[in-house]
Amino acid sequence: MINYEQPSNASDKVVRGIERIVATGKTPYQDYFFFENRANGLCIAINGDIQSCQSDENIYHEALVHPAMILHPAPRNVLIMGGGEGATAREVLKHDAVVEKCVMVDIDEEFVEVCRRYAPTWGEGAFGHEKLDVHYMDINEYIKTCDLKFDVVIGDLVDVEDWESFLANLYSDEFYANLKKILNPGAILATQAGALNSVDVTNHRNVRRGLGAVFGHIESYGIVVPSFYGLWGYVLASDTPFDVGYETLSTRILSRFEERGIELDAIGNDAFHALFGIPLSIRKKFEGE
Amino acid sequence: MINYEQPSNASDKVVRGIERIVATGKTPYQDYFFFENRANGLCIAINGDIQSCQSDENIYHEALVHPAMILHPAPRNVLIMGGGEGATAREVLKHDAVVEKCVMVDIDEEFVEVCRRYAPTWGEGAFGHEKLDVHYMDINEYIKTCDLKFDVVIGDLVDVEDWESFLANLYSDEFYANLKKILNPGAILATQAGALNSVDVTNHRNVRRGLGAVFGHIESYGIVVPSFYGLWGYVLASDTPFDVGYETLSTRILSRFEERGIELDAIGNDAFHALFGIPLSIRKKFEGE
Amino acid sequence: MINYEQPSNASDKVVRGIERIVATGKTPYQDYFFFENRANGLCIAINGDIQSCQSDENIYHEALVHPAMILHPAPRNVLIMGGGEGATAREVLKHDAVVEKCVMVDIDEEFVEVCRRYAPTWGEGAFGHEKLDVHYMDINEYIKTCDLKFDVVIGDLVDVEDWESFLANLYSDEFYANLKKILNPGAILATQAGALNSVDVTNHRNVRRGLGAVFGHIESYGIVVPSFYGLWGYVLASDTPFDVGYETLSTRILSRFEERGIELDAIGNDAFHALFGIPLSIRKKFEGE
Amino acid sequence: MINYEQPSNASDKVVRGIERIVATGKTPYQDYFFFENRANGLCIAINGDIQSCQSDENIYHEALVHPAMILHPAPRNVLIMGGGEGATAREVLKHDAVVEKCVMVDIDEEFVEVCRRYAPTWGEGAFGHEKLDVHYMDINEYIKTCDLKFDVVIGDLVDVEDWESFLANLYSDEFYANLKKILNPGAILATQAGALNSVDVTNHRNVRRGLGAVFGHIESYGIVVPSFYGLWGYVLASDTPFDVGYETLSTRILSRFEERGIELDAIGNDAFHALFGIPLSIRKKFEGE
Repeated sequence: MINYEQPSNASDKVVRGIERIVATGKTPYQDYFFFENRANGLCIAINGDIQSCQSDENIYHEALVHPAMILHPAPRNVLIMGGGEGATAREVLKHDAVVEKCVMVDIDEEFVEVCRRYAPTWGEGAFGHEKLDVHYMDINEYIKTCDLKFDVVIGDLVDVEDWESFLANLYSDEFYANLKKILNPGAILATQAGALNSVDVTNHRNVRRGLGAVFGHIESYGIVVPSFYGLWGYVLASDTPFDVGYETLSTRILSRFEERGIELDAIGNDAFHALFGIPLSIRKKFEGE
Repeated sequence: MINYEQPSNASDKVVRGIERIVATGKTPYQDYFFFENRANGLCIAINGDIQSCQSDENIYHEALVHPAMILHPAPRNVLIMGGGEGATAREVLKHDAVVEKCVMVDIDEEFVEVCRRYAPTWGEGAFGHEKLDVHYMDINEYIKTCDLKFDVVIGDLVDVEDWESFLANLYSDEFYANLKKILNPGAILATQAGALNSVDVTNHRNVRRGLGAVFGHIESYGIVVPSFYGLWGYVLASDTPFDVGYETLSTRILSRFEERGIELDAIGNDAFHALFGIPLSIRKKFEGE
Repeated sequence: MINYEQPSNASDKVVRGIERIVATGKTPYQDYFFFENRANGLCIAINGDIQSCQSDENIYHEALVHPAMILHPAPRNVLIMGGGEGATAREVLKHDAVVEKCVMVDIDEEFVEVCRRYAPTWGEGAFGHEKLDVHYMDINEYIKTCDLKFDVVIGDLVDVEDWESFLANLYSDEFYANLKKILNPGAILATQAGALNSVDVTNHRNVRRGLGAVFGHIESYGIVVPSFYGLWGYVLASDTPFDVGYETLSTRILSRFEERGIELDAIGNDAFHALFGIPLSIRKKFEGE
Repeated sequence: MINYEQPSNASDKVVRGIERIVATGKTPYQDYFFFENRANGLCIAINGDIQSCQSDENIYHEALVHPAMILHPAPRNVLIMGGGEGATAREVLKHDAVVEKCVMVDIDEEFVEVCRRYAPTWGEGAFGHEKLDVHYMDINEYIKTCDLKFDVVIGDLVDVEDWESFLANLYSDEFYANLKKILNPGAILATQAGALNSVDVTNHRNVRRGLGAVFGHIESYGIVVPSFYGLWGYVLASDTPFDVGYETLSTRILSRFEERGIELDAIGNDAFHALFGIPLSIRKKFEGE
């Protein structure tokens, strides 16, 4: 029996049974491993870290994309950083009623091709969409050379394992300061921001630190992703104040889903508010910055 | 290295490191195993199943107790079924302002003693409280002989592993029908109701089935319990309609916490609403009854 | 981290780390999985069962082949049943001085090709050897149609997991009775015969039962194969008495290695005698037939 | 389910199921953990390392004790270093016909008591035997103060995990040089000497190095201990030449077992020779000193 073992919480581990190995290889940028798991269907791992699984990738991706998209009244230009599997673009393009251009910048063309071949449902309807431009390049290079300004930015980059590594730069205040140069006034950014368990929220804290140093307003939220075996965190950031309070969410915000004709299959429009109800004892772990 | 391995989702498993074995033994009713885990502190397992861990037992127990207690305007008499560790009673008694009597019925006196000895923080302030009566007996026997009527019932019984077993009776419509005889009009019941992951929600469905057959109104809710590696489910039931809608929760309900002087340490009063935001794709698994 | 987990002894398991997945697939007859393991190099698994590993496949294969070959004074024609990786043929052909024809019958041509591609050192010097004939067919069919008579037969078939299955026939008395029809007088057979641990020696007992019903003399032997995490068993069988006693081994038998110019790289000629020293407490497990 | 996980070969691990925890605690010198395992019965671990299991502790202890005892023509005084469980003394005292005094020196009185209470079969017939003296003290101290001279020394000390640690001194040339002062001419020493798998034989090499620096003649041997999941190594050492060659073993040596009325239950007298048949490819790992 082949297993996929991932450490958790420093003392524990989650072991996933592998029914079938679908694809395994190494691009110039990362190792990938696609396997079938009985509980969660097709699972995608990069560098030994589960990225998303068929059973609930829509939970993960809906939570990543829609809060920023819906908090912004008119997200015309949207930038996706990373997002190689294509599901992030898929969710962004559900806001077709307001989106004019979605630009996805991923350094790893080979990985995107592997995803399109082995995990085609992730990017369904996205790749080939007339509003989507995909650039295979370093996001730093893209920022330097791009002549668009964005209303929403979605960060769907891999987790940082080592905060001294090069990858950590993509979550640094320096990086975000550069990114700001290609943002429109009122722009809002959302990024995946690591696991939120009760013990180790280092990644989440560090993401908040980078964003908080550059943007005037940040807000954490989360949702349980069953195949990740816990609560997953995200951070919103903007220089313009935004309100995720109870009343706003239940009125103005929800109506935008309706206006744009969007039903959240995985989260459910009615449960959207729960994204902003991270248990206090977990919130305290990362707010004591 | 000693590990505590628990299957999950039929194909996967969660392996918790054991730093120290604190207590292990067998009462007439169950096997218990108390151990220290680096991530989650003291952990209590019964019959090979984690019951609660020091790091987040307050998340589990706050979620179990407070929704029913706060939805009821005047919970004078409260019955706890099971709850041997004492934390359920601890949470109930936080409603000291309105509670007059809290009765805890647990069949396993020896286990309660083991908990009081090895996990004293669970029952802190509960055992010895003047409003708490503890009866060590079969809950069926208690129902037959008791002369109190209850406003709130909290079910904190162990998970059913085998729905053909004797234990399953405690979640059956027959059992709930008997229980009803000792309820006041307007009474509300809350019970823990198994894991809510995306794959297997058998336990939750079965708990809903039993309650739904007997009570006019039922409602599922959930919260992430990090040491359980996922979302945990609960069910509310009453013959009197109750509202867990957004607006009610944000107004009337929250004010009751204030009136009774209760701060939810683990969930947070502000995040209380999120209990009722189970992701739609998970909700669909158990609602297709 | 990807692991290869194999149950052992009903209550335990051996978990091997996977450095790299080399090949995985399904032939018409079996699932194969080739992976790199830090401790043992390239490992070959069939149907979830480790077959042999680079680090010590020579221990396994020398022990399988040489006792029968050396106990026979003149093994001209040798039949290999199974042996897809080619290492069994490699060892047989070390007796080039006396062997005239080595016939390998393996049902699974695709698997043999996979081995030649991904594990070429196993069959080094065998495939392509002028004395080797490979037939890709059911061994039962081969027996019916072959017109050679053999002096030595080496059984290198996969372990039986289910003794009610079709595969079990290849270890049955009926099968061995048929096989006998293509043996020369004085022929000797050796077969791999499962793990010899102190607890479960079912496979070994069953192999002995089949052979013992058909041949006049059988003898178990074994050697530790580190990558199998224990002692591995084999059985010799013949209608002609053979002696693996101390004195015979140390004199006549060892001299044959010299006569044929064979040095046992893995076992060592000097340690050859130890094959016949299975600890008594283990021997008792399978001898109480 | 509770498991006992032990790393092996740097990349792999052996996971043993725990049926029941029998005893766990900490003496001034070590952590101990006694558990029931389905395959191997009662298992004793010290500092996270399996010491011996009920199912085959006799294989381990017979192999440790009898080679030295039988190679010596008249082992009157025998010293056991360590051996807390009592099984080493039990085996030594089987040579009652020739032994006059058996001295066991173990630093950890509490551990010996724990063994006598929870694993009484290990020391059966030893503790309380009139020829056994037990001293609870540092072996270095014992050597300084003792006025006996020994014919055989059996080293049954725990494995060294860290060769920079204090414990490593007990396998150092300095230690052995001191030990020599209390040996009779012709004395022979045997010590357990770590796992002999194909990959990592560091412990065995280091034990050989210490002994080889001090004694004129050393010899490695081994036997499979199924509950250790592989081959276990031992080293013999003496200043007087001793012969473990085939012929000697099969004649003079075996007759001594008979003379002393000893039947090796676990190894078997007939399989005694196999102890000295370590596969060549494994032997090469530690002989390239």
